[in-house]
Amino acid sequence: MGNFRFSQTLSKQMREWRRDLHQYPELGWMEYRTTYYIDRLLKSFGFTTYMGKEAIVSESRMGVPELSILSQYENKLVSQGEVPEDTIKKMEGGNTGVVAVLDTRKPGPHIAFRFDIDALPIEESDKSTHFPIKNQFRSKNKGVMHACGHDGHISTGLGLSSFLANNKENLKGKYTLLFQPSEEGARGAKAMLGKGWLDDVDYFLSGHIGIKSLNIGDLVATTSGFLATTKINVTFTGRSAHAGIEPEQGKNALLAAATTALHVQGISPHSGGVTRVNVGELVAGSGRNIIADKANMKLETRGETTDLNQYMVGEVKRIICATANMYDVEAEIQIVGEGIETSYDDWWIPTVEQAMNNSEHIKHIIPNIFFGASEDVTFMMEKVKECGGKSNYFLFGTPLIAGHHHPEFDFEEDVLDVALETYVYLIKNLLNDTK
Amino acid sequence: MGNFRFSQTLSKQMREWRRDLHQYPELGWMEYRTTYYIDRLLKSFGFTTYMGKEAIVSESRMGVPELSILSQYENKLVSQGEVPEDTIKKMEGGNTGVVAVLDTRKPGPHIAFRFDIDALPIEESDKSTHFPIKNQFRSKNKGVMHACGHDGHISTGLGLSSFLANNKENLKGKYTLLFQPSEEGARGAKAMLGKGWLDDVDYFLSGHIGIKSLNIGDLVATTSGFLATTKINVTFTGRSAHAGIEPEQGKNALLAAATTALHVQGISPHSGGVTRVNVGELVAGSGRNIIADKANMKLETRGETTDLNQYMVGEVKRIICATANMYDVEAEIQIVGEGIETSYDDWWIPTVEQAMNNSEHIKHIIPNIFFGASEDVTFMMEKVKECGGKSNYFLFGTPLIAGHHHPEFDFEEDVLDVALETYVYLIKNLLNDTK
Amino acid sequence: MGNFRFSQTLSKQMREWRRDLHQYPELGWMEYRTTYYIDRLLKSFGFTTYMGKEAIVSESRMGVPELSILSQYENKLVSQGEVPEDTIKKMEGGNTGVVAVLDTRKPGPHIAFRFDIDALPIEESDKSTHFPIKNQFRSKNKGVMHACGHDGHISTGLGLSSFLANNKENLKGKYTLLFQPSEEGARGAKAMLGKGWLDDVDYFLSGHIGIKSLNIGDLVATTSGFLATTKINVTFTGRSAHAGIEPEQGKNALLAAATTALHVQGISPHSGGVTRVNVGELVAGSGRNIIADKANMKLETRGETTDLNQYMVGEVKRIICATANMYDVEAEIQIVGEGIETSYDDWWIPTVEQAMNNSEHIKHIIPNIFFGASEDVTFMMEKVKECGGKSNYFLFGTPLIAGHHHPEFDFEEDVLDVALETYVYLIKNLLNDTK
Amino acid sequence: MGNFRFSQTLSKQMREWRRDLHQYPELGWMEYRTTYYIDRLLKSFGFTTYMGKEAIVSESRMGVPELSILSQYENKLVSQGEVPEDTIKKMEGGNTGVVAVLDTRKPGPHIAFRFDIDALPIEESDKSTHFPIKNQFRSKNKGVMHACGHDGHISTGLGLSSFLANNKENLKGKYTLLFQPSEEGARGAKAMLGKGWLDDVDYFLSGHIGIKSLNIGDLVATTSGFLATTKINVTFTGRSAHAGIEPEQGKNALLAAATTALHVQGISPHSGGVTRVNVGELVAGSGRNIIADKANMKLETRGETTDLNQYMVGEVKRIICATANMYDVEAEIQIVGEGIETSYDDWWIPTVEQAMNNSEHIKHIIPNIFFGASEDVTFMMEKVKECGGKSNYFLFGTPLIAGHHHPEFDFEEDVLDVALETYVYLIKNLLNDTK
Repeated sequence: MGNFRFSQTLSKQMREWRRDLHQYPELGWMEYRTTYYIDRLLKSFGFTTYMGKEAIVSESRMGVPELSILSQYENKLVSQGEVPEDTIKKMEGGNTGVVAVLDTRKPGPHIAFRFDIDALPIEESDKSTHFPIKNQFRSKNKGVMHACGHDGHISTGLGLSSFLANNKENLKGKYTLLFQPSEEGARGAKAMLGKGWLDDVDYFLSGHIGIKSLNIGDLVATTSGFLATTKINVTFTGRSAHAGIEPEQGKNALLAAATTALHVQGISPHSGGVTRVNVGELVAGSGRNIIADKANMKLETRGETTDLNQYMVGEVKRIICATANMYDVEAEIQIVGEGIETSYDDWWIPTVEQAMNNSEHIKHIIPNIFFGASEDVTFMMEKVKECGGKSNYFLFGTPLIAGHHHPEFDFEEDVLDVALETYVYLIKNLLNDTK
Repeated sequence: MGNFRFSQTLSKQMREWRRDLHQYPELGWMEYRTTYYIDRLLKSFGFTTYMGKEAIVSESRMGVPELSILSQYENKLVSQGEVPEDTIKKMEGGNTGVVAVLDTRKPGPHIAFRFDIDALPIEESDKSTHFPIKNQFRSKNKGVMHACGHDGHISTGLGLSSFLANNKENLKGKYTLLFQPSEEGARGAKAMLGKGWLDDVDYFLSGHIGIKSLNIGDLVATTSGFLATTKINVTFTGRSAHAGIEPEQGKNALLAAATTALHVQGISPHSGGVTRVNVGELVAGSGRNIIADKANMKLETRGETTDLNQYMVGEVKRIICATANMYDVEAEIQIVGEGIETSYDDWWIPTVEQAMNNSEHIKHIIPNIFFGASEDVTFMMEKVKECGGKSNYFLFGTPLIAGHHHPEFDFEEDVLDVALETYVYLIKNLLNDTK
Repeated sequence: MGNFRFSQTLSKQMREWRRDLHQYPELGWMEYRTTYYIDRLLKSFGFTTYMGKEAIVSESRMGVPELSILSQYENKLVSQGEVPEDTIKKMEGGNTGVVAVLDTRKPGPHIAFRFDIDALPIEESDKSTHFPIKNQFRSKNKGVMHACGHDGHISTGLGLSSFLANNKENLKGKYTLLFQPSEEGARGAKAMLGKGWLDDVDYFLSGHIGIKSLNIGDLVATTSGFLATTKINVTFTGRSAHAGIEPEQGKNALLAAATTALHVQGISPHSGGVTRVNVGELVAGSGRNIIADKANMKLETRGETTDLNQYMVGEVKRIICATANMYDVEAEIQIVGEGIETSYDDWWIPTVEQAMNNSEHIKHIIPNIFFGASEDVTFMMEKVKECGGKSNYFLFGTPLIAGHHHPEFDFEEDVLDVALETYVYLIKNLLNDTK
Repeated sequence: MGNFRFSQTLSKQMREWRRDLHQYPELGWMEYRTTYYIDRLLKSFGFTTYMGKEAIVSESRMGVPELSILSQYENKLVSQGEVPEDTIKKMEGGNTGVVAVLDTRKPGPHIAFRFDIDALPIEESDKSTHFPIKNQFRSKNKGVMHACGHDGHISTGLGLSSFLANNKENLKGKYTLLFQPSEEGARGAKAMLGKGWLDDVDYFLSGHIGIKSLNIGDLVATTSGFLATTKINVTFTGRSAHAGIEPEQGKNALLAAATTALHVQGISPHSGGVTRVNVGELVAGSGRNIIADKANMKLETRGETTDLNQYMVGEVKRIICATANMYDVEAEIQIVGEGIETSYDDWWIPTVEQAMNNSEHIKHIIPNIFFGASEDVTFMMEKVKECGGKSNYFLFGTPLIAGHHHPEFDFEEDVLDVALETYVYLIKNLLNDTK
């Protein structure tokens, strides 16, 4: 592999894939078309692939949409000819994602990669200055958008797959590429992990495009500050009543939800480190003149450590129960997503620095950045470490017009070259190390 | 008119109409099919009718749904052949309702009646014990239900129309029947009133089925305690931000809405009389891990007098503005419905008692009940009184399995006979009086 | 008694007593000096009196101050020579109040009267325009003030006693005058009632100076709208912690109290009638940088009926307990005062009108006013009615510079003549009636 | 100074002084007796001293108690013979504190020390196991307690003074010892700093007894994590009203304070670092049945940097103003204390380690600890650094039965030897360095 090089073609292809994918964003556990798209390409490169129910443990999924919503979308895709019926069957009921394996059958390390593939429930901007508008690849799925760069992650994964396939003869060891569904909401990693893909992995690599104010060419060698997180749904059920005639007959679920929102916001900070809580969605009530008998809330906690997150979860639960008593309503609490803390390994910093010595696109290596967000990849990272392997998470710099999860989010596509190069040069280095 | 009598047929027909209408409930300003249904029958009875834009002042409507929603529904009705295209044209853009006029051209009083025709955004019960289930006339419009008895009101109005047409030769004076859209939310009365239908009316009559724990045969002669009301929509607009990475960048619209909900609930009671406030709906946020930049609330105030209601509106507005400042978000306040107070006239009590002397279905007359709810019919009642006429509002007793606005709401259909008889006997009495 | 008349002397004396008493206001269960003052005068008129522990059932008192505070004040009064030691002994430990009985031993009705004697924890105004300043009888007890007119009530009671004593030969029946301690906070009536003073009473009379915007000479014949009430003290106990170093160790009692205050304010109104709640005092925390481990709240509920008040008490208790759970603190709830509803008897209106026919000072009789406040006299009124007697409560008009419980509260002293005349003329009338 | 040594006497004296001082704790700006006590001893050692108005800039004081409270206490101290009248004069009106200067007139560094002298408004424990109870030196000032170890700080300062005086001939350079009033609430440092005592200082040293779970002999060489802080008093003024009769007339200051307390607790955390807020005291209302027209709150903000603290102050102010609008009350905001961030200098770690090489009592040196609290000494530390000097803050380990500001707070007196030795050995080292 001494003299591998990038083809210009690959760089161009990654941009095309990205723009294709960007037009058809799909929400977590609904990435049917996306999975099919990835799977076809992987197969065309020569990979053995495992799709849908072969790739994940169905029972370990969290935060799966209602079956009726899934079915309706599955039918639409089939009837519109977007995905063949037998392919849909393999993913039926929200079992998405695909895993590609390349075994060189030569002694060498097992290296695994993870790329997340889901999009967000955000209506993409239609400003004339928005890059996907100018270049005509805005989302065609109403109210859904790749606003977190996962289209770029998939493209990088496809670029890496293509490279590995093309350089197979120069490689040794085994390569596993996880195209994971449902990262948003931290709902998918455990289900994919459960299949055992990472049980004997030596090196596990993943990363994210565009966090913090970095430029193209900036590579963050290691990432700390993954916040442990819990995603919680709450339903308050009270009793409706006419608000004018007999207000005392109502049990007000809307006020219970409002009270919970205000009080979880006031949970005491912790001297042990960073904590977070957010009620991101609240939907309550069925009519202006009716005392609301139903309220749904989506909230999340985070903590710099798993313990700190548990402190937050405990506080949130106590507040929810107390509020339910206060308003004499019922509360149902559901955990729908989870991520744990992970620590980074100093070993990677010199390793990455050395590996990128001759790289073309990487101009500046930042040893470490505190992430401050959550990622369910931490389950995978910790699993690999438990089994004696090494895990790492990169950040690939790109200027951003607007932050992640924003309707105008966009990244500079040159970051795709940086990300691909990072994986490739590191593989080269790891193969040499373990020679 | 000395010897008028009810036909058994009419009693049966009212039940049939009611069950027809119950299956096709429509929300305020969307009563296209309902209006068309009423209009056809009225015409078949021989009435001159005024439909849609002829019946109301378009600009005076409040709380009209978005045009896109209206168009979509109009198109659906036309394409499914429910309403002819030229009929829809007369009501295009949410201009529903119909007025029927019968002028005997004989000297006599001008008597007007108002029947409200809209339904509610409630999913009807599918319990096997629910009367419309047992008798197979449950709502066919998903999420919409006649849960306030307006299907019964329309049927009574149709029954009265049929009676008037059949007894035309025995009558004198003029009869105007207003089939008013959008009573729920107090959005429609002003628009219909604006056309001048009530400018020279001597007697104005209206009423409601089933309030309070009354039985079939109970007639409430006069109603007090109409609460003045204001219907308010609020939108808070803040700034979204990733709740883990940079929470301080967010401007939290969800918490602003929650705070407003809690604090309007705590507005001080008033020594001047009954006041009410209800936040009936709250929808906020776009994602669990995003600080919500948008929140919508539907709320209402009420007061025993118009002044008391204004006290509540003033308090609500101050709280909304203060909360917006507290969370550094923008608040937009919209008045989308209104009702005023009205007083009742003692004169009606002996008049009604005397009129019902020989009635068949009316067994017990209750002189007055305190309503405790709001009704935009008060605008009509006050208008008639200003012009020298007399207004009255009846309550027609019926046992109720579940209260108004409840998924299991239902009334006993015998109340339709009581209501029709009330109007008919009273007309007879008023004609004699003014002979 | 046909030709009884007022002496000018009596009118003058009432003003003198009032000004004496106004300078030495005493809080509930601490009216040692006041009781001694009244008792001496009553004895001088020739009454049999029952003081302190003879007048009340000690165990039935509510809201009694801490023993240490009582002892300290008792000692001060003795050491300063204000009250003889053996007199204090009769009242030791907060057993104040005095009852005077005059039995004519001639057949006739038993008529009872109640005058409340306590003052309020308010610092009296020192404005030069304040009447007690101009006339040099401002309160000499720092932070305590007769700001509810009870000094006037006592004076009226003394005036009536004097009159009865002077006209003993013209009277028949039996007369009982209750000088009741601790009306503020509704803490004393039950304790005095418990001694059985009212068990065989035919007529029970009481009243208040100066409610509503009435003038001198206005007499309100009957009073409705006594709100049932409960007075509640709450203590929240949490755990203190340094707010900077380890905030998560604190259990915040201050926030629990704040939350309770906001949420009891938001208890739903009741279709059954008027309700009220007020958190009047909140004291929490021991240092700015310490998470507060203690909070004390004084609150009260009211209801137009005893049931409505109980509804409020139930809601308040549930909210307190839920809030305690929310903040993981302990809550202690104490009932420290109570008043019940009472209805008025129409019979009094013509009776009073007729009795006042020849009165000198009473110019205008208002049949009834809705009070809207609470009074523990209701326990006495209901007791008398249960035993077959008749109860009534007057309002004696006077212009007020500032409302009750205000540092500038003051009444025009001519109202004392009106009040005395009301009682005297009514006695005369009742004696004639029962002749 | 090569052969200086501790006298056993000094160790014993420090314990005696400490127990003396512990019995007479005084609140900030009221340390009259304490100042006099220190001043007498310093003079007896031979120091030139500057007391009261000579030591501080009166106008720069923050959070000074009301003059009437100060006067009353001054008079009491004089009348009881605790402090001579002419000494009180020098400190009249809350101008406490004393500065001692020793100038060797030999070339050498100017070294300054700061010892804080005030106590806290806490009632000291009377448990039989409490060390000051067992050894009979519990606080004699009711409700005031040295619960933060400042009695130990003063004793160390006196011990150091005594040592310096006794070793004067071995020393060179200049020594300034600041006995600073009103550290609690961060109210005093700026006032003492303003006199210019630190303008030409080379080394500035201070420290605290007993933070974190350290043992006797543990010395923390440098301290990071001083939180910038602002101390804020808020007064809400509304309008009182009878809560039963006319609740709508009230403007509720108690609810405004409660709302502020809940909402400042919910200020968003900041990605830039640690922030804190605490409402430590809330006193509102004057009577149970009166809508509260007055509420006072004491709160504080903190931030890991001065900017973060300013973020918190900004949020707090906006919330207070918005809440005032919400309840239609007036808010008055007063800044009564301040502390800024400071960074530590790595240079001290080896310096301290080397200096303590031969120490007797120091067993374990911890390079750095994150403090997490605030201290107005940061103003002094930053000033010295600005002028080219070096500043440092030590933590002296001691087991604690109960945390700082707790009624059972106590430290092991052996820590006094550790603290004194730290200062002495460091002086020795600094003199050698600058030889």
